[in-house]
Amino acid sequence: MGMPLKYLAVCAICTISTSTAIAHSSNEKNPYIVHRQGIYEIAGGHMNALKSILMLGHPAKADISYHAKAMLEAFKHHGNAFPEGTDKGKTHAKKNIWTDPEGFKEKGQTAGKAIMELIEASESSDEKLIKTKFAGVGKSCKSCHDDYRKKGS
Amino acid sequence: MGMPLKYLAVCAICTISTSTAIAHSSNEKNPYIVHRQGIYEIAGGHMNALKSILMLGHPAKADISYHAKAMLEAFKHHGNAFPEGTDKGKTHAKKNIWTDPEGFKEKGQTAGKAIMELIEASESSDEKLIKTKFAGVGKSCKSCHDDYRKKGS
Repeated sequence: MGMPLKYLAVCAICTISTSTAIAHSSNEKNPYIVHRQGIYEIAGGHMNALKSILMLGHPAKADISYHAKAMLEAFKHHGNAFPEGTDKGKTHAKKNIWTDPEGFKEKGQTAGKAIMELIEASESSDEKLIKTKFAGVGKSCKSCHDDYRKKGS
Repeated sequence: MGMPLKYLAVCAICTISTSTAIAHSSNEKNPYIVHRQGIYEIAGGHMNALKSILMLGHPAKADISYHAKAMLEAFKHHGNAFPEGTDKGKTHAKKNIWTDPEGFKEKGQTAGKAIMELIEASESSDEKLIKTKFAGVGKSCKSCHDDYRKKGS
């Protein structure tokens, strides 16, 4: 695909079941926390839309590629999402994002790669492959949450 | 702007403070409910990102136009979001979406117009105008929620 992984900081709060996290952002005043939660919320929305199409039978199959690409696009607008000092506030980010930046970055790169594979699959008509790649994105999100998101948040 | 309002069904669950609504979609099995909640979640994410930039001082001013356009794009993928029978389930949609479809449609068109005005403003460097148009989008969301979304949801 040739997309620059270095621009991606994909991870943390993007999967389907975790959007409650975002509700907090309405009270949070730290611009970086609100911004990154917004980006994850966008990704979560695309994952939910994809879930409805791929797993629940929503008919908008023509939109699979749009959702996959728009999710990647959102992450490309993540910017410097976890600057120093943004571990305080209404955030679900665990401290080890800052103490283990390399590990966190690696999870982000894995997620970015998974999304790119979903995009590539979505340009085919191989629904089985698309579903596998969709599951791969979900798995990459969960893997990051497991390590870098506060439990129960 | 010339964008086809008829493709937009903008409303209901898109504002900043309301993303809790979406958390339910992880258990919901109706594809139309999950799909539309995904679309609103995307819009909510863009609104949160815009809020962080316009109201809280996040530096990503160059992304304002991206967020406004991507929000519109999401709504263009709404499809037939409230078909008959999707008033049941984990939805925050009030019954009058189906009993007063014309009123609901009008709210959606107003919101679509507000987003298009935000896009237009975002292509200028007039930050005051951009903020006014951003507030206009928020207002159009709230106006629809007030009438067509269950209270407290």
